This record gives sequence, structure tokens and C-alpha cells, in this order.
Amino acid sequence: MIDVVILAAGKGTRMKSALPKVLQPLAKQPLLAHVIHTAKQLHAERIITIYGHGGDAVKQRFANEQIEWVEQAEQLGTGHAVQMTLPVLGRSGFALILYGDVPLVSKATLQRLLDASKDSGIGMITLEVADPTGYGRIVRENGLIQAIVEHKDANDAQKQITEINTGIYCVSNEKLHQWLPKLSNNNAQGEYYLTDIVAMAVQDGLEIASIAPEYAFEVEGVNDRLQLANLEREWQRYQAEQLMRQGVHLIDPSRFDLRGTLSVGQDVEIDINVIIEGDCTIGDNVKIGAGCVIKDSTIASGTVIQPYSVFDQAIVGENNQIGPFARLRPNARLADEVHIGNFVEVKNTTVGLRSKANHFTYLGDASVGQDSNIGAGTITCNYDGANKFKTTIGDRAFIGSNSSLVAPVSIGNGATVGAGSVITQDVEANALAVERSKQFQKGNYQRPQKQK
Amino acid sequence: MIDVVILAAGKGTRMKSALPKVLQPLAKQPLLAHVIHTAKQLHAERIITIYGHGGDAVKQRFANEQIEWVEQAEQLGTGHAVQMTLPVLGRSGFALILYGDVPLVSKATLQRLLDASKDSGIGMITLEVADPTGYGRIVRENGLIQAIVEHKDANDAQKQITEINTGIYCVSNEKLHQWLPKLSNNNAQGEYYLTDIVAMAVQDGLEIASIAPEYAFEVEGVNDRLQLANLEREWQRYQAEQLMRQGVHLIDPSRFDLRGTLSVGQDVEIDINVIIEGDCTIGDNVKIGAGCVIKDSTIASGTVIQPYSVFDQAIVGENNQIGPFARLRPNARLADEVHIGNFVEVKNTTVGLRSKANHFTYLGDASVGQDSNIGAGTITCNYDGANKFKTTIGDRAFIGSNSSLVAPVSIGNGATVGAGSVITQDVEANALAVERSKQFQKGNYQRPQKQK
Amino acid sequence: MIDVVILAAGKGTRMKSALPKVLQPLAKQPLLAHVIHTAKQLHAERIITIYGHGGDAVKQRFANEQIEWVEQAEQLGTGHAVQMTLPVLGRSGFALILYGDVPLVSKATLQRLLDASKDSGIGMITLEVADPTGYGRIVRENGLIQAIVEHKDANDAQKQITEINTGIYCVSNEKLHQWLPKLSNNNAQGEYYLTDIVAMAVQDGLEIASIAPEYAFEVEGVNDRLQLANLEREWQRYQAEQLMRQGVHLIDPSRFDLRGTLSVGQDVEIDINVIIEGDCTIGDNVKIGAGCVIKDSTIASGTVIQPYSVFDQAIVGENNQIGPFARLRPNARLADEVHIGNFVEVKNTTVGLRSKANHFTYLGDASVGQDSNIGAGTITCNYDGANKFKTTIGDRAFIGSNSSLVAPVSIGNGATVGAGSVITQDVEANALAVERSKQFQKGNYQRPQKQK
Repeated sequence: MIDVVILAAGKGTRMKSALPKVLQPLAKQPLLAHVIHTAKQLHAERIITIYGHGGDAVKQRFANEQIEWVEQAEQLGTGHAVQMTLPVLGRSGFALILYGDVPLVSKATLQRLLDASKDSGIGMITLEVADPTGYGRIVRENGLIQAIVEHKDANDAQKQITEINTGIYCVSNEKLHQWLPKLSNNNAQGEYYLTDIVAMAVQDGLEIASIAPEYAFEVEGVNDRLQLANLEREWQRYQAEQLMRQGVHLIDPSRFDLRGTLSVGQDVEIDINVIIEGDCTIGDNVKIGAGCVIKDSTIASGTVIQPYSVFDQAIVGENNQIGPFARLRPNARLADEVHIGNFVEVKNTTVGLRSKANHFTYLGDASVGQDSNIGAGTITCNYDGANKFKTTIGDRAFIGSNSSLVAPVSIGNGATVGAGSVITQDVEANALAVERSKQFQKGNYQRPQKQK
Repeated sequence: MIDVVILAAGKGTRMKSALPKVLQPLAKQPLLAHVIHTAKQLHAERIITIYGHGGDAVKQRFANEQIEWVEQAEQLGTGHAVQMTLPVLGRSGFALILYGDVPLVSKATLQRLLDASKDSGIGMITLEVADPTGYGRIVRENGLIQAIVEHKDANDAQKQITEINTGIYCVSNEKLHQWLPKLSNNNAQGEYYLTDIVAMAVQDGLEIASIAPEYAFEVEGVNDRLQLANLEREWQRYQAEQLMRQGVHLIDPSRFDLRGTLSVGQDVEIDINVIIEGDCTIGDNVKIGAGCVIKDSTIASGTVIQPYSVFDQAIVGENNQIGPFARLRPNARLADEVHIGNFVEVKNTTVGLRSKANHFTYLGDASVGQDSNIGAGTITCNYDGANKFKTTIGDRAFIGSNSSLVAPVSIGNGATVGAGSVITQDVEANALAVERSKQFQKGNYQRPQKQK
Repeated sequence: MIDVVILAAGKGTRMKSALPKVLQPLAKQPLLAHVIHTAKQLHAERIITIYGHGGDAVKQRFANEQIEWVEQAEQLGTGHAVQMTLPVLGRSGFALILYGDVPLVSKATLQRLLDASKDSGIGMITLEVADPTGYGRIVRENGLIQAIVEHKDANDAQKQITEINTGIYCVSNEKLHQWLPKLSNNNAQGEYYLTDIVAMAVQDGLEIASIAPEYAFEVEGVNDRLQLANLEREWQRYQAEQLMRQGVHLIDPSRFDLRGTLSVGQDVEIDINVIIEGDCTIGDNVKIGAGCVIKDSTIASGTVIQPYSVFDQAIVGENNQIGPFARLRPNARLADEVHIGNFVEVKNTTVGLRSKANHFTYLGDASVGQDSNIGAGTITCNYDGANKFKTTIGDRAFIGSNSSLVAPVSIGNGATVGAGSVITQDVEANALAVERSKQFQKGNYQRPQKQK
């Protein structure tokens, strides 16, 4: 039984933001959301979040989550923050003490910490760093952790120590109930320090377990925009590496952004500057061209997307050819072998097998059957200024260029619409529909002249 | 009283360019423009620029600036170059000696150099570097600068010196008038070296002041395209860092380019590969999507710009929703809560409160009132092949899709234009205007067959 | 006389791909294609490629090349692989032994290796590295190569050696015929090692020549997607540097991709994230805006391309203004001073001197004369659902906005087409053609109301 305790009360003054720090986004999700996500993966019994600055905004953002909210009204130190949780903290099991601004600690690392802490009842994550300046040092004797000494309190020998405190602990709830009330603020800052539990554990004769994270970024905190940007880049590099290990061909891993989750097939090729957002699934042999932005979409095998196409909540079948400059909006559903060309927008529309809309087309609130050809400049006029209506196009239809299909309207199977027509009445199957005047010609026409 | 002397006579052979070196652009401005800009910030009494190669092009480019142009007809060394300025150089005050190909020295650094140089009458910027190979070394005794020794003349001990000469000096004009005529070209190259004034100062018993720049890039020069690209990146990183310190959320600071000045509100988010050019102002909570190019534009608070939108001289109100693939051209003026969607181009046009043009629309030389809806594919036909005319659309108008509004033409308040209409005559308020034929239908139409 | 022997039988399990490793693309070309390209530059007498895994796919990909294919049915080591070539290997001259997954070794480096190997009959490329862990060490005595010792077999002194074996050899064919049959698999792996020929050469009293590559990336191999991405970046950096040395102004060399060959004039400026593919030629003073993708195209001097334009097999004249968001498809041929604006697509079409298509236009299978203006929204209706036809537009024509030109159709010199017209019949020179109904107006029109 695990309780996850998350310190999330900080203001984050150096972010220069109206947003509380733990709501700052990393990979499009609030910092705190990453921690909560990890807590849920660990099947935590309770997720206890200590809020303070901007607490209303924080609570509102996570209103749908099962979270115990505990207020820290005054900022009296990390120990004080965790003290606030005592009324709701379990009596048995363990607590993982995490931070809302240390977003990327992994489930696997925390699992290792839990395992390591089981016997003695207390464990922590420590990190070896090249330059420990400013950090609390881990003082060991015969390999056992004896104390955490803050940089400013460290003697010269201690300053040489390169193993530092990350602040992440796993402690038996029983011990927390025992130790936390005894914390004192009898120090220069007048604050209650969580690190004092280490001394208490040593005093109690406990061996403090410690583990290292797999990646240093897991224990990095965010205090300003530079650190946020750095951590974002470390995370993106990590994700890119994971995808490459799965076999994804990233043309430039330093120009790839995944802001969510991506499930991929074999031999997926992703060109430079692609952004994947939300939850996306991409099948075998899909190629995504430079600069595409793909959000919450599914793309089946063999589909090739040319540069600068933007998808949001689209479902794309196999062997489609899409883009460049295609835009698929929510509920665009393309069957297999569909072609969507340049400057084409598709919204809330199904397009059937082998149908094509290759240029300058708006398909909104429509259904297009199989083997139909939608000419350049075709627009489904789905909105009359007040309501939206549906356009239905059958199989094997041919819609001439620059046509306007005024919904609600239906174009039958095999029907043909002449170029430039405004279609307001249903077109029967296999019929030709044209809305057009006679072409008029006047010879020796005097073109307007440039006015002075 | 400060004179700024800028050496700008070099050809820049290694740039392999038809352009004189000091006109090569960094962040879209000629190298020399950066130096002149800094000189003006220092309220220099005179900006004296020594030109040579490509002098006409250089002078023409800065024809609107208050600059004293001095020709260096022959390239006889840096000392010779500064000698050329003696006829126009002030008799009192100080001269800052700068370089047209060392573009990024900051006002603050130069101010410190001026302050440091006041007492003794001469000061210089020196730099500590890891690898001083090739640079002139600063030889000190008891901390005082004794000499500058060129790399090729340095003995082994001097070669260990890592403090180098940047070439940037601040010297009292009186001393320059005294020293420069005494420079000799009695050396291997047969050139007059400006660095010889250091020896003269020492001979005169003066303590040569020195300061370090805040950033190494301030004293970096540009001799080839690689150095130019490197310096551009250092400058962009610096600017990105400054913006992040102000609170801007840059998703990837290494994929951000600012080529001009940017004034920002709070909580501005800028996604990858955005380019800001010219003078731009961006309000609170504005989000700029990936790949946008924003030039000389103002964007008010709360506006969200989707990826790949391109603005030039646009004024955008609050809470607009723009893009993706929107193009705002000069004098596009959008009120608050305007929506400009994909593949929409707006030029020399005002759009009123809450009006929308969501797809494939060209608004040129037009005014659109409040709460109007411009249907997909609408085009203002502003050009008759010789002259441009205005389209006026009132409030609450509804323009059907694929309409052509042939300017000059006016659409009244509350008016409706049927889809696909070519509107050549004014439409009264609250009227419906349609230009359309009857829809004709022919059953069992025989579609053209594939020719052999 | 040179034979180039290429080992290309590996599966590349770590790529996690259905594609054989040597077909994985680097800069859009299969790894093996780079090696074959270099072999051809060396005028190799024979290119002998040893295939194995995925051999059919490999052979098919290079079906048009003059290659001797030799199968290595079992993977019994590098020596075994080269043994397979003996039946086709020349009896005189030299063999260069290369690798299908070491794609970037340069012609110049191989030429140096050949020159160095001529006297003794055997030479190899070795590399100095900072961390030799895992690599075969080059053991020398009095400067002469004595042996290659694999990492696992190296003693402590040998482990300190930082000169490593790259596997690339140049050996006289005579010697290969002599040595290869004598290779033994009497070792832990039971494999035949090519490196054993070094011992044989030493035994025969030959001095083994060695050279270093100019760049480390020339001898880097690819085993997984991370290595592939790294090598791609190294190659791109190298290419960017070469172009900058030629005088190209790359705004950010780390955001530039050349996937093919680029021939450039003077003062070409390439903004961030441009991709050049295939064979491209770019004239003097051309500017390519951010994010453009240019493939197999020629762009003449003075042309300015705005951001996010995509070209494929286009031929563009001088002083064109193109983009942003322009798309030139195969056989787009633009004369000088042409303007192609935003959201314009041109395919298999010639556009004459000074003609303009500034907005939302599809020109497909068309020819446009000089000084013509194609209005916004114009579409050449080139496809009737079965066949494609040509649209011919003369000089000085003016095509009104939103027009549809139904091919086959011809618009004469000086002709004018009224906005919104569907043109199905040829328009005579200097004539005005309009297809339009009367504009109808109805006052106090009751707009549709929002339905519940």
C-alpha cells in the first residue's frame, strides 16, 4: 500500500507567470500532471497533494482526479508541507514523497525505490553529479548514509562529495507519523526541513536505503523558464531515443516533439520538425513529412503524409496520400487509399475507399462514398449562418471544380456535377447536374485603364 | 562626449560574396547596422565610419543615418584606418574604436569601458579564452598592461597567456590626435597597427584600463559564413534566454529566431521554429504555434495562432483565433475575437469584432463589420487588372461560400449573399443577394471515358 | 584497375525493420547507394557486392547498376564474405574492401588509401579515437603495423592503444587470391576473419600502409536507428559546412538538410529548416524562406521564395516571387519575373514572363503567356474524370477571380474573363468572356434561425 505525497504549494516566482508553477506545461501537460500520472501507474492508495499558491487553479485543473488535497497555508518548509498530510496519511504502508515541480521521475525508478526501502522503512533517491555546488550532500560512513549536509553548512571535505540529495523519499507511514511531529524549525531560516527525518532515521538505527535514478532528468526540478525548456528538451531527447530503439526512423531526433503518447508500427519514418500531440497511433510503413502536426489521430499502414499537414482527431486508413498542406479536423475519417491533396480541409466527414480531393477543398459535415472525385475548389456549404447541415456524396461521383454544395444536399452514386455549379437540390444517381449560365463573349473589349 | 569610430573597410573575401562584409546580415540586419545601433544608444556625438571595399553600397545602405564617412582608399592596417578619421575626430572627449564586423558588442559593455577609461585616457576590452592560439596576448606586469604581443611574435611564456586583445579601445581624442600620427609601418607586413598605441600609452606612463565583456560573443568577429552562422546562433540563444528570463515560454530555445525587437506580455507561449522579425509586440497569454513567421506586427492578449501562419505588418486584437496556414499581409487589422482560419489571406483590410473568415478566403482592400461570417472560398475581387477597389461588408453580414465580391461594392448590415454568387452591385442592408442560374439535371448522363 | 568489394549481407536486427540494413536510407539514399556511388566515382573495374539477408530486395533496388552480385548464404564472418568474391575478383590490380553499412567513406580518402597501398600491396584505414573500447587495436612496432588485436583479446598495454581498425582495406588482388583461401575459422566464434590477412601480410614481410580518414564519420558504421540518426546529422553538418565555405548563407546550419546534390550561385540565402532533395541548381542571390522543401528543381538568379513553399521538378526563372505556401509540382516551368503567391499550385504548366497568379489558384496542364494575371481562386479544370486536357492562356490575359477554365479551352491574347465565370468555350483575343446570371436581390430577407 503506497501513498504518494506530492508537494505542490510553490509559487514559482521566477517563472514570471500568472500560473502556479505546478501548472506550467512540459510536453503540453502541467508539471503536476506528470507526477500524478506516475502515481496512478504505481496504483497508489492515496494521492495526497499539498497545495498553496494558486491552489484553486491547481485543484480545478485536476478536479476529475482522485486526489486528497491538503492545504499548506503558510510556506514553512518541506517538512511543514508533509506535516500537513498527517491527518489523511495512511497508518501502514509506505509514502513516496514527490514534488509537483520534479515531473519526470519514472515509475520504474520509484518501484526500485519502494523495493529498496521495504526492509529498513526509509529510502531515498540520490544522484551523482559532476558539480554538486548548492546541493545537499549525502554523507556516508562505511557506505551507510549518516546525514544530509546542506551546501552552506558543508565543511571542505563534505564539499567534495558529489552524491546529492534529490528530496525524493520513500518512508513507512508509521515512521512519518512518528517523525514528522518532531520536526523543529530551530534553524537559520525558521523552516521545518523534511531532510531532518534522515537524522531521525539514523538516530533510530535504521539503514537508509538509496537508489540512483536511471536518468538524471528524472530528479531535475523546474524553477524558471530556462530549466523548463532544458527539461523539455531532455524529455524529448529521451522519448526520441525510445522511439528509435523501437525502430522508428527519426530523421533528426533533436527536431522531434512528442507531447503525449505514440504507438507505432514497423518502419515508420518521421521527418524533421514533426509534432505528435495527445494519443496517436501510427501503423507500419507510414511516412510523416516535415513539419506535420498530428494530434489525437490514428494513421493506418502505408499512408504517406506530405509536409506541413495538420491533423486533429482524425482517423486515416491505409495507403492514403495526404498533403502537403492538408488539414484534417476532428472526426475526419478517411478509408483506405484516399487522396487528400494540398490546401484541403476535412472536418467531421467520412471519405470512402479510393476517393480523392486533391486541391483547395472544404469537406465539412459530409460523407463521400467510394471512388469519387472531388474537384479543386469544391466547398460543402455546411453552414447557413445559424445551423449546420450534411452533404452526402455517393460512390463514383464526380464533382466539378469550384462547385458549391449547399447542404443539406445529396449527390447520388455515379452523379456528375459540372464545374462552378451551386448545387442546392439533390442530384440523382448517374445524373449530370449543372448550375451555369450561357457563356457570353464581347469582342474588342476595352480593359479598364490605370487611373491617375 | 563620445565619438564612435567604426572600421568598416574590409572586403571579406572569405564570405565569397558580392556584398561588402559589413553588409552581411546577422539577424536580418547588416553587421554594421548593429554597431551603428549601439553607437546611437550611447548618444555618440559623432559616428565616424571608415569605408573601403564596396564603400558606395555601404554608404547607400546607411544613407539615412547621421554618419561621418571617411574613406580608407588603401588597406594599410588598422592604425592607418583610424588615422583617416583625424580630420573629423573630436579634439576633446573619448573615441570608442569599434569594428563593422564585430557586431554584437553591447551598450552596457561599452559604457563600462568608457567608465573604466576615463581616468587614464585609454582602456580596452580584453577576453579570457581557453585557446588563445592566433590572438594577440595581453602582457601584464603587476597587473598592469604592458604590451600586446602578436601570436607569431610571442615567446613560449607569452604563448601561455590566455587573455587576448579584442581590438576594441576607448581612447581620449586628445591622445589619438597625439599618437596616431606617430604610428609606423616599419614591420614585416608594412602596415600601421592600431595596437601600437598601447606601447605609446605605456611609454607615456599611462595605466591602460581593461574590462571583460559580459558575453564572449560581444567581441567575436565575422570573417566567413561559418563564423557568421555561429554568431547568429549565439545571438539567438542569448535573445531566447533573455525572453525566457522575462517569462516567455519558449518550447525550444534552440529553435527560435528573433530578428529585430520583441516586446512581450505575461505567459506568452512560442512553439518551435517561430521566427519574429522587425518590431513586434505580443500581449499576455498569446500562443504562437509552430513555424509561424511574424513580422512587424502587434498581437493583443489572449490571441491563439495556430501553426504555419505568416504575418507581415498586421495588427491583431484580443482573443483572436488564427490559422493554421493563415496569412496576414500589410495593414491587416483585426478587432477582438476575430477568427481567421486555414488558407485565408487578409491584406489592407479591417475585420470587426467577432467576425469570421474560416476557410480559403481572400480579403483584400476590404472592411468587414462586426459579427459577419465570410464563407469558405469568398474572394474580394479588388483588382480589375489596372486599379484596386474597396469592398465594404457591414455588420452581421453572411457571405455564402465561393462568392466573388467585385469591388467597388458594398454589402449592407445584416445582408446575405447566396453561395457561389458574383456580386457586382451593392447589396442593401438585410437583403438577400444571389447571382445564380437554375440547377439543371440530366439523368443517365454518360460520363467521359478514358481515351486510349 | 580497382575492384570494389562491398560487404552487404548483414540483416541489421537492431534496426527493427523489414528492410535489409544496407537499404536503410541516409539523406534519402540507401546506405549501400552511397558506397556504390563512391565506387563509381573511383571508376572501379568491378563493383562486387556480397549480399545475404534480404538479398532480393537489395538486388532489385540496384537492378540498374553494373554490379557483380555474390551471395553469402551463411554468415560465417567477414573473411568468409570476401572469400565468396574470389570467383569474380580480378587477378591483377587492387581491391578496395568496403561495407554497405559504412556509407560515407569519401572518394578522396579511398584514393589516398589506394596510393598508399600501391607499393606494399596492402593498406588500411585506421582511426585515432578518444575511447577505443570495443574496437580492434592497431599494434605497431617501430611504426609498422604488426597486428590487429580485438578488444577482448587485448592485454592491458594494448588496451591503451587508441588507433583502431576500421575494417576498410586495400589489397592487391593477387594477394587476396593467395591469402583468402588460407583463412581459418579456428577461433572462439568459429568465424573466418578478414583481419587475419594482416597477420599474413606481416608474415610475408610486407609493410602494411595505413591512412586516416579526413573525417571520422567516413568510417562510422550503422547498426541501429540512433547511429543512423547520428550519422545523418554528421553528414548534414558536413554538407552545410561545405556549402558555407562556397559562400552560401545558411541561417542555421543545424537546421538544414541536403538529400542529394545542390549546385549554388553566389549569395544564396537559405533560411531555417529548408530541405533540398534530389538534384537542385540555385542561381545567384536566390533567397529560400523558412521551411521550404525543394526537390529536383532549378531556380534562376534573383528569385525570392517565401516560407513553406514546396517544389518538385520545377524550373523557375529569374527574379520570380514565390510563396508563401506555393506548391510547384512536376513540370512547372516559370519564366522570369513571375509571381506565384500563397496557396497556389502549379503542375505541368508554363507561365510566361511577368505573369502572376497570386492567390488560391490551380494551374494544371496549362500554358500561360506573358503579362497575364490569373485572379484569385482560378482553377484550370484539367480533368473530366477520365482524361486530362490542356488550358491555353495567351499574353496580357486577365482571368477574373473564382473562374473555372474547363479544358480543353483557350483564352486569347489580351482577353478578359469576368469573375466567377465557368469558361467552356474558347475566348478570342481581346474579347471579354463572362458566364454569369443577373444579380437578384430580395429585401428584408429572413435569415435562417438557430434550430433547437
